Amino acid sequence: MIDLLAQTADLVAIPSESHHEAALADHVEARLRALGHLQVDRLGDNVVARTVAGRAMRLVVAGHLDTVPANGNGTPEIRDDVLWGLGAADMKGGLAVMLELAAAVPDPAIDVTWIFYAGEEVAADHNGLGHLFAQRPDLVAGDAAVLGEPTGAALEVGCQGTIRVRVELHGVRAHTARPWMGRNALHRAGRVLATLDDYVARRPVIEGCTYHEALQAVFAEGGVAGNVVPDRAVVTLNHRFAPDRTIDEARAHVEDVLAPHLAEGDVVTLVDAADAAPSGLTHPLLAALRDRNGLDVRAKLGWTDVSRFAAAGIPATNFGPGDSELAHSRDERVDRASLDAVFGALGDLLRKSP
Amino acid sequence: MIDLLAQTADLVAIPSESHHEAALADHVEARLRALGHLQVDRLGDNVVARTVAGRAMRLVVAGHLDTVPANGNGTPEIRDDVLWGLGAADMKGGLAVMLELAAAVPDPAIDVTWIFYAGEEVAADHNGLGHLFAQRPDLVAGDAAVLGEPTGAALEVGCQGTIRVRVELHGVRAHTARPWMGRNALHRAGRVLATLDDYVARRPVIEGCTYHEALQAVFAEGGVAGNVVPDRAVVTLNHRFAPDRTIDEARAHVEDVLAPHLAEGDVVTLVDAADAAPSGLTHPLLAALRDRNGLDVRAKLGWTDVSRFAAAGIPATNFGPGDSELAHSRDERVDRASLDAVFGALGDLLRKSP
Repeated sequence: MIDLLAQTADLVAIPSESHHEAALADHVEARLRALGHLQVDRLGDNVVARTVAGRAMRLVVAGHLDTVPANGNGTPEIRDDVLWGLGAADMKGGLAVMLELAAAVPDPAIDVTWIFYAGEEVAADHNGLGHLFAQRPDLVAGDAAVLGEPTGAALEVGCQGTIRVRVELHGVRAHTARPWMGRNALHRAGRVLATLDDYVARRPVIEGCTYHEALQAVFAEGGVAGNVVPDRAVVTLNHRFAPDRTIDEARAHVEDVLAPHLAEGDVVTLVDAADAAPSGLTHPLLAALRDRNGLDVRAKLGWTDVSRFAAAGIPATNFGPGDSELAHSRDERVDRASLDAVFGALGDLLRKSP
Repeated sequence: MIDLLAQTADLVAIPSESHHEAALADHVEARLRALGHLQVDRLGDNVVARTVAGRAMRLVVAGHLDTVPANGNGTPEIRDDVLWGLGAADMKGGLAVMLELAAAVPDPAIDVTWIFYAGEEVAADHNGLGHLFAQRPDLVAGDAAVLGEPTGAALEVGCQGTIRVRVELHGVRAHTARPWMGRNALHRAGRVLATLDDYVARRPVIEGCTYHEALQAVFAEGGVAGNVVPDRAVVTLNHRFAPDRTIDEARAHVEDVLAPHLAEGDVVTLVDAADAAPSGLTHPLLAALRDRNGLDVRAKLGWTDVSRFAAAGIPATNFGPGDSELAHSRDERVDRASLDAVFGALGDLLRKSP
């Protein structure tokens, strides 16, 4: 039996914070090339490895190499059947499964494309899968796609969209001993931030799955000097929205939330946006994955690159080891059962065409 | 008649943002040395020039060389009898009066000490007058002191104290698609900032003068990544308090205001503090200044270095050209009448001992 927990720990031990994925891409590329049966291409820090056996269908399995910044959890640690560490769930567990399956199933019943890509945890224009779709659509083409994001070995279908909105609030500079001569932009930002704290998110039900939206401040800053009433504050928000809304509708909603606190001269800018995606379970490959393994089906709350596949007409779902609710937290971890379950289900799909 | 407006413009034209006062200190030192009748000492970017005529009393006249950062107003501009520009009021008008009086009254009836010092607009440990009191108390000694901070040529007595308090608020990091797994520290900071926006300041009446306290956020920052619920936010507050409170009492008050919004693990730190000061008008030199010129007497709202003189047992008052309410604002300016009034009143005090 392959020790997927140890394999994942090896990947966690190679730091790969966004924009610094080269070492992990080198490692992955070398391992895939060594297998011999795959056609391997590399674009930047994105690695694509394909079987080219001329099968009737092609499954794409993709995962991102990068992690968010470490949070005191940069060193992998295995205790019993659990691996703790940055990226254990999001998503080096998925990468370990992909690498081991690429080796374990050298002659699959369906052609398979393994994609390892950079820049998923940062602004959309850095996304390696986006770069591949733009520059080499031939490399990422397929009949259906599985994204190895953490789903606890369930199918998480669709995905919520995401926008980032920058809010620049203005005030009037003055001496802090006479603040009534000015207007404190940070105090105005406080009104916005307190409103976010009170925000009640929608939980729409779509195709039987319950989504859960969110609106969070991710950055705030302001200040001139220790004795000056600041005349400018900037708050950046991240809004996650369900697949029943477009980016424009989501943006309009954020602007409605902000409206009571804005004044003339304030500037609201959309700095990053990615569409939501519908469920991809109509495709026989993905339906087979669900039915042969009796997998649970849930709504995907985070934005994932299934949205890119959906936009390119390729039905896609999230399916990977690890608990997505622990992603980006200090307590991020993955357990052996979850890794083995995903390894088993995907291996079965590769060995038996539906 | 000396053109004090043009003299002030010359000083505004020499940039002297805090920590970068050397060029202006060089200029002042050269002019004072050239006069010949003064004993000139320089410590760092602090320049002290004294008559040593053995008079019965010594008046200290002090002013700071530094300004806050420019706000689109770095270039001096004279229109009619008004000079616009960074530092015009706070306090290069006062410095111009001091330099011209040092030249115009070479043989005063009372000894006089002219102090030009650095680092007043930043944290107290950078204050050049503080350095002089610590390192060369002999240079700053005197019977009474006038600080040339802008008072519109009125006497502004006493001064409010100031403390800066750093508030570090904690949360729990999580993915922004699942914020309920964490706690947004920036949203918590919003509660603090919104409270400051609602804050109603005390306006105590002390010795017939009405003070006006203030509590303002001067810096705020937080954020980890565009898709992470931030687990830390830092807000820095500046509180100005009347002379009926000590630093400890002022700090306790700020902690009371913050208390409803703090949680275990948050850290509140006093990062800077300067005492308030009582009125110094009991001293005959300062009483003469008031009585001979029929000067208005008001409470000083801003903290000024009169507090340092008061702490050293030297009665002191603020008395300078320009409107303190324009200090640190883009519209900072000084007018000719104000410069001439201060020049006339201080010249009279130097020429006729009380």
